[in-house]
Amino acid sequence: MQQEATRLLQAGNTIALVPTMGYFHEGHLALMREGRKQGDALITSIFVNPTQFGPSEDFQAYPRDLNRDARLAESVGVDVIFAPEAEMMYDQGHQTYVTLDALSLYLCGPSRPGHFRGVATVVTKLFNIVRPQVALFGEKDYQQLAVIRRLARDLYFDVRIIGVPTVREADGLAMSSRNTYLSPDERRSALSIHQSIQLAQEGVAKGIKDARQLVAETSGLIHSHPHTKIDYVTLCDPETLEDVKRVDEPSLMALAVWVGHTRLIDNAILTP
Amino acid sequence: MQQEATRLLQAGNTIALVPTMGYFHEGHLALMREGRKQGDALITSIFVNPTQFGPSEDFQAYPRDLNRDARLAESVGVDVIFAPEAEMMYDQGHQTYVTLDALSLYLCGPSRPGHFRGVATVVTKLFNIVRPQVALFGEKDYQQLAVIRRLARDLYFDVRIIGVPTVREADGLAMSSRNTYLSPDERRSALSIHQSIQLAQEGVAKGIKDARQLVAETSGLIHSHPHTKIDYVTLCDPETLEDVKRVDEPSLMALAVWVGHTRLIDNAILTP
Repeated sequence: MQQEATRLLQAGNTIALVPTMGYFHEGHLALMREGRKQGDALITSIFVNPTQFGPSEDFQAYPRDLNRDARLAESVGVDVIFAPEAEMMYDQGHQTYVTLDALSLYLCGPSRPGHFRGVATVVTKLFNIVRPQVALFGEKDYQQLAVIRRLARDLYFDVRIIGVPTVREADGLAMSSRNTYLSPDERRSALSIHQSIQLAQEGVAKGIKDARQLVAETSGLIHSHPHTKIDYVTLCDPETLEDVKRVDEPSLMALAVWVGHTRLIDNAILTP
Repeated sequence: MQQEATRLLQAGNTIALVPTMGYFHEGHLALMREGRKQGDALITSIFVNPTQFGPSEDFQAYPRDLNRDARLAESVGVDVIFAPEAEMMYDQGHQTYVTLDALSLYLCGPSRPGHFRGVATVVTKLFNIVRPQVALFGEKDYQQLAVIRRLARDLYFDVRIIGVPTVREADGLAMSSRNTYLSPDERRSALSIHQSIQLAQEGVAKGIKDARQLVAETSGLIHSHPHTKIDYVTLCDPETLEDVKRVDEPSLMALAVWVGHTRLIDNAILTP
């Protein structure tokens, strides 16, 4: 892959990279369609990265289907699929990690210790292997996007980071490979995540600015659905991810909710 | 610098980088002379990196002389000096660090917490800014060299790391910018560091293999000189830096010694 990237760059191509864990849905394909516009050469990586899963998380169960992914990637114009083995990405004696201080502490940080270290490390490797000028990430994983923007800036990667809006099912549920874990009952309850964000958006539109009140109404709606358990509902600064007390500026509402055994995330910017 | 590096690469040059903290002595110039052979474009960075100094260390006192350094660099054929300000290398909100697990734990690790994190972070930045194909580091800072070799491998930097042998004064003292801190009395005592390594080399040549005995004789010689205080004397595996009990294979003798208020390091491979 590194040799191929060097060849592409020496031939004057701009490389666009869409890093993924595979099992593609419309959200991934939206990233690739945008990447197709941004680069002469469009590369998608497929790698279920072990270091970003905690010991009790779903690394083994995470859905995989490389053949189907390859067909879908080809259909949207991907030039190269880079699907390394874990033993290649982390060879024997591997011990180097990339960490971020503040941005790892908020939102998903406390319930997923080590997760963003794993993300930052694998993205650093991918950037050095694929050598993109442009890389695209979904806004659904908002904290991941913030971490990668900061990482690219701090480590002076000459890579433009592009966030692509969340793609949703017709009823509003944010697309996620993990949605396949949901039973029909759970699928109905999962809809409360998006609905609760809409409720907060309506609250802000009506002039409510108190973060505690907005979070309480959001949480209340989710709690009223069976199978749900809130990990967090937060209103925070969109860049630093630090909590805000009032929505005086555009603020990020981010939440993580267990629906049965499946942990789902979603977010939106609330603009007063 | 990043634009200049891109221009040099697009014109087909091989870039060789010698990262330094400045205040050049013959050791630095040896790195540059070797770099001159390895690259079409030879770049030296001069940056006293704050994140690799502990709070009680000599960051402020570290000697600096950019004008003299520029003349010396030019005299050995350096094409570009990259001397950034600290505010540029670590902008407001900087929070991304590169860490190594095992290699940071040994030798200088315990007495310099955070040091190798600082080294690994700044070298990652420098690699992304200067974009070298070759980078040269002195063998005097053996652990640093081991850390950077591992870092380059783990993060897939396409950079060849070259170690350059330690340059010594006529009497054997390893060259170091910190030697300028020594009083004439301390300068005499500092010589015991190299002499003690020679004693261990003679011991191994005579067939002594027990690490404890070799370390005891080394330490004894240093202790017999005034103003000295040993931080560590270690015999270890040259790649993993894990302690060895016997010198059955080529082993690294590494030591750090306080001479007055100055901490000096030196090392050699002992070959049975």
